[in-house]
Amino acid sequence: MSDLSSGVRAVMPDVQGRQDVRAMPIARVGVKNLRYPLVLDVAGRAQHSVGLWDLHVGLKAEQKGAHMSRLLAWLDAFTLEGEVVDFDRLQRAMPELMALLETDSAGLSVSFPFFIRKTAPVSGQQSLLEYEGGWLARCEGGHTEVRMVATVPVKSLCPCSKEVSEDGAHNQRSHIRLEVLLGKAVPWAELVRFAEDHASCELWGLLKRSDEKWVTERAYAHPKFVEDLVRDVALALNDDPRVLAYTVDVINFESIHAHDVHARIAHDKKTTV
Amino acid sequence: MSDLSSGVRAVMPDVQGRQDVRAMPIARVGVKNLRYPLVLDVAGRAQHSVGLWDLHVGLKAEQKGAHMSRLLAWLDAFTLEGEVVDFDRLQRAMPELMALLETDSAGLSVSFPFFIRKTAPVSGQQSLLEYEGGWLARCEGGHTEVRMVATVPVKSLCPCSKEVSEDGAHNQRSHIRLEVLLGKAVPWAELVRFAEDHASCELWGLLKRSDEKWVTERAYAHPKFVEDLVRDVALALNDDPRVLAYTVDVINFESIHAHDVHARIAHDKKTTV
Amino acid sequence: MSDLSSGVRAVMPDVQGRQDVRAMPIARVGVKNLRYPLVLDVAGRAQHSVGLWDLHVGLKAEQKGAHMSRLLAWLDAFTLEGEVVDFDRLQRAMPELMALLETDSAGLSVSFPFFIRKTAPVSGQQSLLEYEGGWLARCEGGHTEVRMVATVPVKSLCPCSKEVSEDGAHNQRSHIRLEVLLGKAVPWAELVRFAEDHASCELWGLLKRSDEKWVTERAYAHPKFVEDLVRDVALALNDDPRVLAYTVDVINFESIHAHDVHARIAHDKKTTV
Amino acid sequence: MSDLSSGVRAVMPDVQGRQDVRAMPIARVGVKNLRYPLVLDVAGRAQHSVGLWDLHVGLKAEQKGAHMSRLLAWLDAFTLEGEVVDFDRLQRAMPELMALLETDSAGLSVSFPFFIRKTAPVSGQQSLLEYEGGWLARCEGGHTEVRMVATVPVKSLCPCSKEVSEDGAHNQRSHIRLEVLLGKAVPWAELVRFAEDHASCELWGLLKRSDEKWVTERAYAHPKFVEDLVRDVALALNDDPRVLAYTVDVINFESIHAHDVHARIAHDKKTTV
Repeated sequence: MSDLSSGVRAVMPDVQGRQDVRAMPIARVGVKNLRYPLVLDVAGRAQHSVGLWDLHVGLKAEQKGAHMSRLLAWLDAFTLEGEVVDFDRLQRAMPELMALLETDSAGLSVSFPFFIRKTAPVSGQQSLLEYEGGWLARCEGGHTEVRMVATVPVKSLCPCSKEVSEDGAHNQRSHIRLEVLLGKAVPWAELVRFAEDHASCELWGLLKRSDEKWVTERAYAHPKFVEDLVRDVALALNDDPRVLAYTVDVINFESIHAHDVHARIAHDKKTTV
Repeated sequence: MSDLSSGVRAVMPDVQGRQDVRAMPIARVGVKNLRYPLVLDVAGRAQHSVGLWDLHVGLKAEQKGAHMSRLLAWLDAFTLEGEVVDFDRLQRAMPELMALLETDSAGLSVSFPFFIRKTAPVSGQQSLLEYEGGWLARCEGGHTEVRMVATVPVKSLCPCSKEVSEDGAHNQRSHIRLEVLLGKAVPWAELVRFAEDHASCELWGLLKRSDEKWVTERAYAHPKFVEDLVRDVALALNDDPRVLAYTVDVINFESIHAHDVHARIAHDKKTTV
Repeated sequence: MSDLSSGVRAVMPDVQGRQDVRAMPIARVGVKNLRYPLVLDVAGRAQHSVGLWDLHVGLKAEQKGAHMSRLLAWLDAFTLEGEVVDFDRLQRAMPELMALLETDSAGLSVSFPFFIRKTAPVSGQQSLLEYEGGWLARCEGGHTEVRMVATVPVKSLCPCSKEVSEDGAHNQRSHIRLEVLLGKAVPWAELVRFAEDHASCELWGLLKRSDEKWVTERAYAHPKFVEDLVRDVALALNDDPRVLAYTVDVINFESIHAHDVHARIAHDKKTTV
Repeated sequence: MSDLSSGVRAVMPDVQGRQDVRAMPIARVGVKNLRYPLVLDVAGRAQHSVGLWDLHVGLKAEQKGAHMSRLLAWLDAFTLEGEVVDFDRLQRAMPELMALLETDSAGLSVSFPFFIRKTAPVSGQQSLLEYEGGWLARCEGGHTEVRMVATVPVKSLCPCSKEVSEDGAHNQRSHIRLEVLLGKAVPWAELVRFAEDHASCELWGLLKRSDEKWVTERAYAHPKFVEDLVRDVALALNDDPRVLAYTVDVINFESIHAHDVHARIAHDKKTTV
C-alpha cells in the first residue's frame, strides 16, 4: 500500500516507490474481488446495485509497485455521489484513472445484478426479472474501449427432441451472455432483448397458470438448438450499428443430461469488410 | 404454478389444488435462489442492496401443491415500495405471509452484501467495507422468530507462531459469522462490532502506509487462535440482552496452509439457567 | 498448530496446551475446506475420487486449543493405504479419531464426485453419470452416527404445464439430495435409485437420437411437481429398513423462471411410532 | 443430440444434419461443465483425479448442428482405459478428435485437483498438498497447441508492512496460477516449483510447531509484493526452454483488506527477439 501524497512520506520508507531492476513490465496489477455499490440507469430510472470490481493498471519495468490505495480512492469517489455508471461516464473516466495512477494503461471490470420489471404475457401480473450485467473498460495509448455485458436467462427447447418424439420435447433454462463493444450507448432494456427475442421463450419471475400455458406453447412452437440461439442473436447484433464487435455465449443447462452444452460466436465488425 | 385468483380458473384445470393421497406432509416447499432487491437501514440511512431469497411454507399432507406464484407476489409487494427490511417489519410480515399461503408455517431467508463507511485509523481516509448480511425468519404455531446474520471479514494473528518465532507471526484474513436470534432490534453497525472488536485487527478498504503500520502492529499485539476469536465473540454476545441465542462461526484462511481452520460456538440463553 | 509429541516440546512453548480461563466449551473446532483423495466402493469396484473434508472435535472449557495437526495426521493415515471409505470403516474410525484428539466428540464431513456407468435405454451406448456423494459422521458419548449423502441429477416435467398446454410441457434438470442415517450399509448404486426411480426421467451422459426420443416420451408420461418428487422419494425411503432417518431435498432449476423451486421432507423413524 | 451411426438413422429425422442457411460459422460449440475421471502422472506415479471438462469444435456456416454425442463417446474412450492424460497424449489426441467430429478446429479444457506428497521442513512429517491443475489443448489448421495449468497456493509477506512496522508484517495465502504453452513435457512436480521457489514461503498440509517457526521466519526473511511474485516467477519461466509462452497470475488474499490484489505477466517467446 503506497502513500505518496501524505505527510508520512518524509519519515516512512516508500518501498513501492523504489526502482525495480528486473526489467519486467507488468501487464496488469491492481485490486480484485472488491465489492462496492453502484447506480445504473435501467429503463430511464436510477437502479442501485452492488458491483464486484476489478481495477488494474500496467506497470512499467522500472516501477517496483503500483499505487494500490489510489485505485480504492478513485473508486470511492467514482461511486460516492450516486452518479449513474454508464457508457459515456466510463469513456470519460478511464483516461482520468490512468492519469491518476501515472501509468500507460488502465482497465476496469465490474459485474452486478440488475432487474427489469416485466409483465406476464396473459395475466398481466408484474414482477422483476434478474439479469447479470457488467462493464469492461480499457484505456491504452490514448484510446478507450468500453464493453457492455449482460447474461440473460431464457428457455430453450430442442428441435430434435420435438421432431423425433410422439409428445413433448426436452427444454431447459439457458443463459445467453452478450459482450458488446459499444460505439454508442445501448440501454439495458434493449440489450437484453437481443437474447430474449431469439430464445424459444423469454422468462418471467411471476407466472400464473394462464401464463404458464402461453410460455409452454410459445417454446414448443419455437424450438432452437444451442447453435440456433447463438446464430440468431449474432445476426441481430450484426444489424445494430451501435455495436462494433461482440461475443455471444449460450449455455443450455440440458434437462436430459447432467452437463451443459455451449456455443460461442465472436465477431469484430471493424476487421471485416 | 397455481393461479387460484384469476378468471382462467373456471376453464383451466387446477392441478396443484387437487387432493393428495400419499399422507405425507412436506416440511418446506417454495422458491429458492431468487434475486430481488431490498432496502436496509445501515447507520441510520437507507442502503440499497440485492438479496438472494428463499421463501418456503409447510404443506399439509392432503395438499398436492403449494401456491408458488403467491410467494413471488408477496415478495414483490414486500420490497416494491422501498420500505426498509428490518427486525420489526419481518416480525409483522411473517404471519401475513403464512396467512396468504394458507399454511401452518412459513420461512424466509435472504442474504445480501452491505457496506459501512469506515475511517482509516491514522490517515483518516474514508472507504466502504463490505459485509455479507442476512435475515432468517420463521413463523410456526403463532410464534415468529427472526435471526440476523452478518459475516465480518477481519484479521487474525497466530499466538503460537508469534511466540515460537524470532520475527513475525503468520496472520491471515478470517471470516466471523454471527447468527443471532433477536429479542429486540440491533443495528448493523453494532452487530459487526461484536466481531471487529475481538479480532486481532479489524479491516478497512483503503489504507495508506501509516495505517498499514498501525494495522500490522495492532494485530501483532493482539494474537488470537481461532478458538480465542470464537470464545471472545461469544462472551460479548452473552452480555447483550437483545440477543436471545446465537451461533458464532470463525474461519481462518490460514496463510501457512492451503486449507482453513474453523471454530463454532452455539448458545441458546433460553434453555440455560 | 500444536506439536505435543515431538522433541521440540521441551524447548518450544506450547501455547495451545495452556489452560483457558473463559469457561467456554467450543462445540466444534477443526480443519475445513481441505482436499484429500479417497477411495470408494461403487458397484463392487474401487473408485478413486477427491474429497473436500471437514474434521472437527469438541473442545472442553479448560482447553485453550485443539490439536489441529493431529487431524491432518489422522486423515493422512486414514486415506493413505487406499482402503475404501465406507459405512463400516467410518463406524470404527470415529471413536479412534475422538480418542486420538483426547476429546468428547468428533465429527467428519466429506463430499466428493462419484460415477456410475450407465447404459442408454435404446442405443445401449455406455457412459458415466456424475453424482455428488458425501459422508457425515459424528461420535459423541460413546455413540457413532454415520449419514450417507448423494445428490442425484434427474429430469422433472411439470404436470400443470402438461395439462393446461396444447402441446409440450416445461421440464428441467433437477437435483435430488438424499441424506440418510444408516443402520446398515447401502451401496451407492442402490442409493441413487431412490431418486432416479421416482423422477420424471433419469439422466445419462451419452444419448443417441433414439434414446433422446425415449427420454422425452418417458418424462412426458411421468409428470411430477417438486412436491411429488420429494414425497415419492420419501415414501420409498420409509420402506427401507436400512435407513433409520432421512432428509430429502429436491431442487428444480425451472426452465420457465430464472429462480429455482425447492421441497424438503425430513423424517426420523426412531422418534415415530 | 445426433445419432449418425445407428440404425435409427433411416427412420428418424436427422435435424442437426440438415443444412443451415444463415451463413454463420460458429467459433466453438460443445459440451461444458462435464465431470469425468482422469489419470495423471505425478512424480512418476499414476494419480487418479476427477476433471471438469469442456470439449468443443468449430462449426462451418453450412452445418446446422454439432455431433454432441460424439464428444461424449470420444471422452469416454479417451479416459476409459485409465491411460495417463499428459502432454504427449493430448498432442496426439487432438487431431483425432477433430477428425472424428468432421471439423476444422477442436478445443479441450479440463481442470482437476492433484496432490504432491511433501515433507515438513523441520519435523519431517509427511502430508499431501492440494493444487488445481489443468490442460488446455487446441487443434486448428493442422497445428496443435497444448497448455499446462497449475494454481499453486503459497504464502506472501508484505515488504512495506515489514519495513514500516515495529514488529511483524502482514502476510496471507496467495494463489499463483501458471499457464504455460509447452514445447516439451514438464512434470507436475517441476511446474509447481516455479511458484513455490519464488514465494515468501511455500505451504504444507501438516506442520508441527517446529515447522511453523521455520515457515514464519522464512516468510519474514523473504518479503514480496504481488509485483515481486509475478516478476520472479516470470523470470524463471523465461529461462526454461520447454516453455514457449506463459501467463502468470498472482492473487494475494490480503489479510489487511476484505478484497484481493492481483498481478499478471503474459509473454510469448515466439513473438519476441
